[in-house]
Amino acid sequence: MRVALGQFNATVGDLTGNAEKMRNMYSQALQSDVDLLAFPELAVCGYPPEDLLYKKHFLHDSRSALEKLAADCPDTTIIVGFAESHQGSTYNSAAVLQNGRVAQIYRKAMLPNFSVFDEQRYFQPGTEPVVINLKDVTIALTICFDISNIEWLSKFLKDIGQVQMVLNISASPFHLGKIEKREELISQCAKEFNCAVSYCNLVGGQDELVFDGRSMFANSTGKLIAKAKAFDEDLLIADIIPGGSLKPALSEVEGRSLGMATPQDAVRVQVKPMRPAAPQPADILDEVYQALVLGTRDYAWKNSFKKVLLGVSGGIDSSVTAAIAVAALGADNVICLTMPSKFNSPETINDAQKLARNLGVKLMTVPIEPVLNQFHETLKTVPGWDNKGIAYENLQARIRGSILMSLSNQFGALVLTTGNKSEISVGYATLYGDTAGGFAVIKDVPKTMVYKLAEHINEVAGRKIIPADVIARPPSAELKPDQKDTDSLPDYDLLDKIVKGYVEEDKSPQQLIESGLPHDVVNNVIRMVDRNEYKRRQSPPGVRITPRAFGKDRRLPITNRYTTCTDKA
Amino acid sequence: MRVALGQFNATVGDLTGNAEKMRNMYSQALQSDVDLLAFPELAVCGYPPEDLLYKKHFLHDSRSALEKLAADCPDTTIIVGFAESHQGSTYNSAAVLQNGRVAQIYRKAMLPNFSVFDEQRYFQPGTEPVVINLKDVTIALTICFDISNIEWLSKFLKDIGQVQMVLNISASPFHLGKIEKREELISQCAKEFNCAVSYCNLVGGQDELVFDGRSMFANSTGKLIAKAKAFDEDLLIADIIPGGSLKPALSEVEGRSLGMATPQDAVRVQVKPMRPAAPQPADILDEVYQALVLGTRDYAWKNSFKKVLLGVSGGIDSSVTAAIAVAALGADNVICLTMPSKFNSPETINDAQKLARNLGVKLMTVPIEPVLNQFHETLKTVPGWDNKGIAYENLQARIRGSILMSLSNQFGALVLTTGNKSEISVGYATLYGDTAGGFAVIKDVPKTMVYKLAEHINEVAGRKIIPADVIARPPSAELKPDQKDTDSLPDYDLLDKIVKGYVEEDKSPQQLIESGLPHDVVNNVIRMVDRNEYKRRQSPPGVRITPRAFGKDRRLPITNRYTTCTDKA
Repeated sequence: MRVALGQFNATVGDLTGNAEKMRNMYSQALQSDVDLLAFPELAVCGYPPEDLLYKKHFLHDSRSALEKLAADCPDTTIIVGFAESHQGSTYNSAAVLQNGRVAQIYRKAMLPNFSVFDEQRYFQPGTEPVVINLKDVTIALTICFDISNIEWLSKFLKDIGQVQMVLNISASPFHLGKIEKREELISQCAKEFNCAVSYCNLVGGQDELVFDGRSMFANSTGKLIAKAKAFDEDLLIADIIPGGSLKPALSEVEGRSLGMATPQDAVRVQVKPMRPAAPQPADILDEVYQALVLGTRDYAWKNSFKKVLLGVSGGIDSSVTAAIAVAALGADNVICLTMPSKFNSPETINDAQKLARNLGVKLMTVPIEPVLNQFHETLKTVPGWDNKGIAYENLQARIRGSILMSLSNQFGALVLTTGNKSEISVGYATLYGDTAGGFAVIKDVPKTMVYKLAEHINEVAGRKIIPADVIARPPSAELKPDQKDTDSLPDYDLLDKIVKGYVEEDKSPQQLIESGLPHDVVNNVIRMVDRNEYKRRQSPPGVRITPRAFGKDRRLPITNRYTTCTDKA
Repeated sequence: MRVALGQFNATVGDLTGNAEKMRNMYSQALQSDVDLLAFPELAVCGYPPEDLLYKKHFLHDSRSALEKLAADCPDTTIIVGFAESHQGSTYNSAAVLQNGRVAQIYRKAMLPNFSVFDEQRYFQPGTEPVVINLKDVTIALTICFDISNIEWLSKFLKDIGQVQMVLNISASPFHLGKIEKREELISQCAKEFNCAVSYCNLVGGQDELVFDGRSMFANSTGKLIAKAKAFDEDLLIADIIPGGSLKPALSEVEGRSLGMATPQDAVRVQVKPMRPAAPQPADILDEVYQALVLGTRDYAWKNSFKKVLLGVSGGIDSSVTAAIAVAALGADNVICLTMPSKFNSPETINDAQKLARNLGVKLMTVPIEPVLNQFHETLKTVPGWDNKGIAYENLQARIRGSILMSLSNQFGALVLTTGNKSEISVGYATLYGDTAGGFAVIKDVPKTMVYKLAEHINEVAGRKIIPADVIARPPSAELKPDQKDTDSLPDYDLLDKIVKGYVEEDKSPQQLIESGLPHDVVNNVIRMVDRNEYKRRQSPPGVRITPRAFGKDRRLPITNRYTTCTDKA
């Protein structure tokens, strides 16, 4: 039996566009005589549709789009995810399309409701397994999280008899370390049921999420046989070949026995891919880089922006953001703006120019000094105003934000912000200043990784796109004379360790201190993280690359008096 | 048996402060010899604690606070809500405190996961009813949503035998129409079980939510006997008096039989309040006004702001916001700023001054013209910039936002924004301009209701606090010559109908048009609503007063190509 995995880039709500993409892949798949073509979870409407699912007309239109797809694609069996309204409930379902109509429906049983997922907000769980038979291959249908708990899945499928393949259609977003977990699950699933697994994942950016694709097949020993492209559309085709011996699944004879299939066992169900494996990201940095590029491109394009605009300071964050923007949208579509004040050194201004030349992008210069002076003239009539403190520093950032937004309005270009995760964690940013913009490209990238990304970008390009000085110079916001980030913040190595422990792993200050991190710094950083929730709440979305970003996966109250700090301050 | 309902204003995360408030109410209750003192759902940690619940140390500290409360308050039975960690799961629980310790625990079984609620993200459902007996009164414990489905509750409680009282501890946020539904449920519950119901609700503002209190008792005929204050703390005490005849609940003899208890039935369980009912809001406007005042006060105070700052234009929105701020925080703590440009008429400037005098607040004037001119001088070096279009209008709003934020930074005052729900719906606001600030007081109040609130404020004050001209003048953003809101928007009467139907009720354009609203306007408004999700995402929180605000109860993707518009534009 020949299976094609239609890994395509869906857009939420674009019922017509998504169907069009699926029809194109269908035509392509027919040329390879496939028996089964799978599309991702909720492929009809895109993932996650969020509260669109509360609209009856949305569910109705989704159903119509599904039925039209069935009618348009009668010549093979298609499995496709859609949001199903059925007897007053909504389900996250997989439709089996055959002979021009919806032949059968499987309803997702395990609904994730943690991290970025809110599926129990919308869906009722399905309760019945669905098995289909194609060319004498029996196939159990599953959706994404259904295979996350193999023990549960074994019970769920125990009455359906033995299958030769588990098909999983998925919309599994990327974060660092996710692919390893996903491969482990798929492999476990194959071994548990002693069958092949076909896994079709979504690809593309959707607000803060990036779906990384990498659809794959595993044979019945759990070996991963073929993998589709990462961060790109792909149609991955393989033959599923059940062997002669229909020996029972391990679990049926000995209970749950993961990993007990030994290499010398005959392979019960083989997988023969139609072409060599797609190249995969070289390492973690390559993975992150590709995620950022795709996330940025899709946010711009799917929101109908061709061009982006960003401020470049000659610092590392804006340099890396600019390089990613160019990779995402092309140099012609990236406009850089440098907005110097008296606090900007000639070196950083020079580096901004060098960067723009290296990237081949337009650089405009709009000095902020005259506006800043006029603001000061105006504000000094207010008792208590002065041009020494934080307010004056923030004002500079807000003037820059206003200039960027003014030109964005004028030119219809999306403003990219350039803040990294480390500064966003501790609120080392000016609200409506450097946080002003539509998309925050590196908001989930810790500063220490921003440096590594800069080097990765230079390495891949084979030249110093990001000038060496930008990487070497100690970071500064350049909002007052001789300012350094380290005046206000600990070294980024240390800061990033605390942020990871506190934000991503929910560790207490006590645990962090016990792990060897310095007491005072831990307490100070955590206080800053807690106090700056209000800033993050008003900041733009950006690509999630870690297991916990500042987005839908971290929901903390602004009004929050809980403190775990172990000192009295 | 004497029951006290401890309706207090908890702060999320303030384990020490919340316990202190409960201890004070305990002392007060002891003076009235109460047998049972109830506190709201999750009273120990405040509601909703959101992702604090993912922190093990938070759950641990909550448990310690609970046990200390038990030890500090040994002399009556207390029922109090807390977040319970038990065998690796987290529960939304009610502890029974007796003799200085946690004697028993009930775990909430019905976990809401819609609207503003995410309880299935955090909690496992409980599966066992808990009944306690005090002074020969048997009491079933329930938590908030447990009583939302009386049919389910009947089944859940069917094995516990007959009770004389259902106690419900709750954290039920306010929105228009909520109190009627709540009273109906409580009454239904009393009738179904033929018993008294004691309902203890939380009070206070927490980010966008306002809990309105109004704890109450119902007797076994479903009659509401006593009600605590709205939007304020209160300790409501009543005697629960079971009658002689222990006839079985209606449901036991005739199945589910809501509303079948007739007036001539003997009252099986009576309720005798210790004092007359607390005065309740006079009408819907009074309710909304009180919600806005409490929500604003609590957001400021709980986030450690004494003072607030806002721009007043002489328009209706900023006038109403200023009046609410004064009611919330006192005239001495409200600083108003008028920031005129050449587009502001002498009349509106004059009205801003009149308003400030009427409210007794400080008014500062900071003209934006010089800064605006300097911005224009700077930006006109950029090809394509001009001072005619939207960009120039937005720039004026952003200069005002920057001035407000600068003074906020300088003085440590919270900036209040003044946008109403109608304009926020259609994006008739400048991001980082008039949306710049920490709290958006009237963000969920439709423009038509803003006018009614203005009249309500004047009526209650018995004088024209908000000048008559402000109410009479056609609304204008005053960002270009002779501008009127109606240049860009339909009349607010019509706009508010469409917004209510589309945003709050999930109606399709087709349904709205079929209900008699004009085709073109419906389509235009819906397009504007859909396109401006990105602005709302970066806007500050504000008080929720409708069944669906732009907050946690409306989660739509920014990237969203779904369109239901029935024309081709």
